[in-house]
Formats: sequence, C-alpha cells, structure tokens
Amino acid sequence: MAKIKSLEAQRFAVPLAEVLTDAKHGDHTHFELITVTLRFSDGSEGTGYTYTGGKGGHSILAMIEHDLKPMLIGRDGADIDALYDEMQWHIHYVGRGGIASFAISAVDIALWDARGKREGLPLWKMAGGASDRCRAYCGGIDLNFPLPKLLGSIRSYLARGAKAVKIKVGQPDLADDVARVKAVRELIGPDVKFMVDANYSMSVDEAIAAAKAFKPYDITWFEEPIIPDDYKSYARIARETDVPLAMGENLHTIHEFEYAFADAGLSFIQPDSSNCGGVTGFMRVAELSRKHGIPVCSHGMQELHVSLVSAQSNAGYIEIHSFPIDEYTTRPLVLEDGLAVASDAPGTGVTFDWAKLNAAHRMAA
Amino acid sequence: MAKIKSLEAQRFAVPLAEVLTDAKHGDHTHFELITVTLRFSDGSEGTGYTYTGGKGGHSILAMIEHDLKPMLIGRDGADIDALYDEMQWHIHYVGRGGIASFAISAVDIALWDARGKREGLPLWKMAGGASDRCRAYCGGIDLNFPLPKLLGSIRSYLARGAKAVKIKVGQPDLADDVARVKAVRELIGPDVKFMVDANYSMSVDEAIAAAKAFKPYDITWFEEPIIPDDYKSYARIARETDVPLAMGENLHTIHEFEYAFADAGLSFIQPDSSNCGGVTGFMRVAELSRKHGIPVCSHGMQELHVSLVSAQSNAGYIEIHSFPIDEYTTRPLVLEDGLAVASDAPGTGVTFDWAKLNAAHRMAA
Ligand SMILES: [Mg+2]
Ligand SMILES: [Mg+2]
Repeated sequence: MAKIKSLEAQRFAVPLAEVLTDAKHGDHTHFELITVTLRFSDGSEGTGYTYTGGKGGHSILAMIEHDLKPMLIGRDGADIDALYDEMQWHIHYVGRGGIASFAISAVDIALWDARGKREGLPLWKMAGGASDRCRAYCGGIDLNFPLPKLLGSIRSYLARGAKAVKIKVGQPDLADDVARVKAVRELIGPDVKFMVDANYSMSVDEAIAAAKAFKPYDITWFEEPIIPDDYKSYARIARETDVPLAMGENLHTIHEFEYAFADAGLSFIQPDSSNCGGVTGFMRVAELSRKHGIPVCSHGMQELHVSLVSAQSNAGYIEIHSFPIDEYTTRPLVLEDGLAVASDAPGTGVTFDWAKLNAAHRMAA
Repeated sequence: MAKIKSLEAQRFAVPLAEVLTDAKHGDHTHFELITVTLRFSDGSEGTGYTYTGGKGGHSILAMIEHDLKPMLIGRDGADIDALYDEMQWHIHYVGRGGIASFAISAVDIALWDARGKREGLPLWKMAGGASDRCRAYCGGIDLNFPLPKLLGSIRSYLARGAKAVKIKVGQPDLADDVARVKAVRELIGPDVKFMVDANYSMSVDEAIAAAKAFKPYDITWFEEPIIPDDYKSYARIARETDVPLAMGENLHTIHEFEYAFADAGLSFIQPDSSNCGGVTGFMRVAELSRKHGIPVCSHGMQELHVSLVSAQSNAGYIEIHSFPIDEYTTRPLVLEDGLAVASDAPGTGVTFDWAKLNAAHRMAA
C-alpha cells in the first residue's frame, strides 16, 4: 500500500537557444515543462511531466491542481491502470483529449516513476523489456533555416552519431521543399535514413504532389502531411503515392489511435507519452500497434521515450527532438552505434536539475 | 473597426438546489460558469460563457487568460469566422477539443453578443433567422430519483407546459430502467414526446437490449447509449434495433461531428455551443446537419440555444436543462404553447445577474 500523500505541480518556461519555426505552429521562443511530484505514505516518490510548445501550460497546471489532485490524495498509487481510468472518467466531460490528456500524462508518469523506484526496476523493463536500446533519428524544427544552415544542422546530427535524420517541409513553393530534400539526401548519402515532416500544412492534393516529388530521395516516412483529424485522406495519400506515412503526436485518446490504425493507412505510429496518457497511454497504443503490425515510434521527450520504445517488441525509431530538454536532466541522451540507450536506474530514468530549471524559468519570465 | 480593448474572464461555482446524479459523471453538487466580457474600441461590448458540471473551470479560465487573451487584445472583433479559426490554430497543439473547445466557445459567444448589440440584431436573426421559436423538452439529471420523485419531476415539466420530456437511464438492472420508462409513459400519455439518456453507461450489447426493451414505450430518441467515441457501434445499435439515436454533447470539434454524421447512423444531433466552439461552432455543425438531413437539437444552455436552434431551418428540440441557470439571468426561458421563444434583444439575449452570481459563488466556495 503506497497512499498518495502529496502532489506538487510546477510550470517552467524554458527558453530556446534560438527561435524555431514549423509550418503550422509558427515561432517557438520557449517550451513549457509542467512537472508533477508525488510523495507516498511508504516514503517513495516519483516525478512525471509533460511539455508544450509554449501555450496551454497554465491550463494543464490548473487541471492538475484543481481537478486531479483532490481526487488523487489518499489513493493507493499501486494500481496505476485503475487510477489512470479513474482520472479519465473524473474529467471526462471536459476531457477526452486536449489539456486533459497532457495533465493525466504528467500524473501517470509520476506514478510509474514511483513504482520503478519502489520495485527497483527501470522503465524499459517495466514497459515490456524487449531491449534497452532502440533506433533514433535527429529531427529539427528547421523550416525557416536557410539551406546552408539546414545542412549545418544535418552535419551536426551525423557528427553526433545519428543514423537517421528528419527535416521539416511545407515551404510555400513545393520546388523549395524538393530542393532541400535533394540537398539533404546528397549530403547524407544513401545509407542514412531520412524522414520529412509537414506538420499538416498541406491539402490532400498538395500532399500527394509532394509525396510524388520526394520519391527519388528515398524517404523513410512522410509525417503529418495533412491535418491529423482526417484519417481517411491519409489512406488516400498512401494509396495514391505508396509513400510510408507517420503520425501520432497529435492523437490524445486511445480512440483517436484506433481510428488512425483502422482508417489512415499508416506505416508508423508516433505516440507522445506527454500527451497521450503517459506511460499507461503509450503502452496501450503500443499494444494496439502490434495488433495492426505497425512499428511504434515516438514524438518528443527522447529522455523518456528511449525507455518506452526500446521496451517494445515492435520498436520503430525515437525522435531526438530539438527542444533542449537534455540540458535540464542529469542524463542527456546516450547514443551508441546510432542506437539510443535507456537508463538502468529504477523509475523513469529522468531526473531534473531543478536549480537549472528554476534559473531558466526566471530568465524566460 | 471594433478593436478588442479588454477581456475580463471570471469563474463562478454555482450551487445546485440538490445533488443531481447521472450514470457516468456521478454526483453534481454545483456547476461552474466561466464568463468572458470583451470591450471594444468603438464602445461596444459583449459577454460570452461556458459551463461545466463542476470540473475543469479553472483550467478553462487559465487558457482564456494566458493563451487566448494575449492573442485577442488589439484584434478586430468584426471578422468572427477568421478569429475563430485563428484561436483554434493558436492553441492547436494542446487543443482540438477538450478544454480548448470550452475556452474558445466562451470567447466566440462574447464576439457574437457584441456583434448583435452593435448591429441591433438578436441572435436568432444572425444565426439563420428561420424562426424565433422551437420545440423544447425538459430533461432531468434524475438517475438517482426514486420513482415517485421522478414522476413528480415529470408532472412539474407538464405543469410548465412541456410537450416533451427526457429521463436518465442506466440503472444497474435493465428491468428498473424499463419500469421507470413504462411509468413515465403511462403518466404522460401517448401525445407527449419522450426521450431517454444513458450518458454512455452501457456496452453495445446492453444498449441493444435496452433499445429493444424500451420499444413499446415509443421513445423519440435514445441518447448516448454508449461512449461518444465509438461511432461505428452507434450505427450497429441503430441497425439492429431501429431505435432513433441522438448524441453530440461530447463532440468538441467539427471533425468529431463529421465522423458522427458519417458513421454513427444518428437520427438527431445535439451540439452544445458551450463546448463545440460557441455560436460559430454550433452554426458549422448545423450546416453539416443539413447536408446529412438530420435535425439539429442542443444540449444544455437553453437560454442561448433557444435562439440558435430556432434560427435553423432543420430545427429539432432544445433541451431545457436542470442546472438552474435561469435563476441567474434576467430572462428565464419563455415557453408558449410548448414552444421555446427566443429573445428579440440585440445580442445573444442572455444577460447575467452578476450580483446574484457573485453571491451564489461565495455560498458555494
Ligand atoms: Mg512531427
Ligand atoms: Mg445527455
């Protein structure tokens, strides 16, 4: 019995080194980190978190403080599956995705961190145990980078040991996207995997034209060509171009993943445990992905997803995101022979440098 | 040009006269009202709002204050459609439903209230103008009422002039639901319309059994028998039982409505402008409902929906909800010959009694 004694939630605005731009979310100047630390009656504790591109953090914090915390205090933290379902029902009327999924994710990750610490198990063992390492790609938020700077970024990924890279597409003129894709492929050579991400900036017809134009450059996947809501048009793009499609970072409920698996003709699924229900949400998606025979990848939060993806028998790639989260944890991502290596420490393996976070937050505010 | 000069958002906890219970949200002791008042450079102003069953209000308020307000100040309030789309994109990463839809709804309704006041037009004329009145039913949150009390409620609806009534179903034992349905039908006679609402407490098989058991009692619709996310199983229930199905109060994006229209085999759609994007969101759903030949009804907020539903050429029924909102506005719902009558006042026709709201909030806190 490990009763939840206290819940402490915090919001940090963390500045980026430079303004980052993608096709649909505009400029990013900072990201938000929302942390939840749970303390239990048996002396154990756990920390979970979620993040945003700069909006919604106050709203997530308010839901954790006002709606989830009163429900959680005094409850047994051991049966995470039951608590997860109860949280979903508790805020159901204002939930089923959106802010609620971010808030529940942060709490759920804290519950898993505490479980791992209590049982002496690292996350990759708790979450499936298939392996302690997985493939990884470096992905930039680089739509506004001039070509020389873009290629400089790619070189820095390769220098770091990356065997797969991703760039943003969605320039006003498709010819510009194609020129950038061609230049990157020429730089990396034929053996490095190469993905592109449009952040749903295209219409279905534009996406079909882009997929066809990218074909000579051996794209491992085309990510979010169109809005994540239009599952059936994803399938049409896949059918008409044979391009492998990926999405998932904007799916927040298990039902949204069910529609995507059933209707979208995907080749890869990319849940983000910070917005699809934490470790529990991610594992439920991973389970579904095996039923549908689709490799499970991830979006963002490489420091946590390295464990969650490695643990799956059908592991795809983790994204190494360009938000500088690694500067604020005690264990920046480890890459060995192009594979990302999970922590063996009990719990999630993610420990924040609170002093540094507080200092960064004061700077951003 | 009517530039937004200020935005004032408030949250009120409004106590209920008694604890109300439904099958999935448990006990309600109060509801939350979140109001937004916009003031414009031309001296005009407008008030919008949303509500919850008691959870999420702080989170909605935080999104309005921290994410929407900074975007809105200084913007032209005249092109509501464009502002609506911009709000959706502004919080897209943490949005697409959930809290974001509630927050945007409150702002959107304020924009329409101001437009109506500026142009001297009541909402029913701005929103379509088909009529100033529509059919209405009284619906209770009465799952926990013993039968005599339930029948007392129904008698009070009839005394008020209602020509249609709705009760909650979802008792642990279907026989109890059937007994209640039978007793209500016997009380109201054959001419009063009669709906039932399970608040998605049933499995698909349970819903099919219930629909068959309710058949002798001439049910106008069976509302939310199962979870709102499982569109295709709605269609299966409709196919296997011929029962007319209704849902919509839990659909928060236009895409969710598109899935429901396409896949759920509905006979009625029930958008709630407090959580599907305000007046703009409601009108987009109403437009879709005409394409699919389905009458548009509403959930909650009768004081606003009387205008929105009356205005539609394919108007169904408004719900007269049991949250006591009418006690806090200057114009309680008007019923004439069983029809609900929209206000002719410019704007939404909803004016709050702020002093009473503040007093109620102090009582609930
Ligand atoms: Mg992406
Ligand atoms: Mg209902």
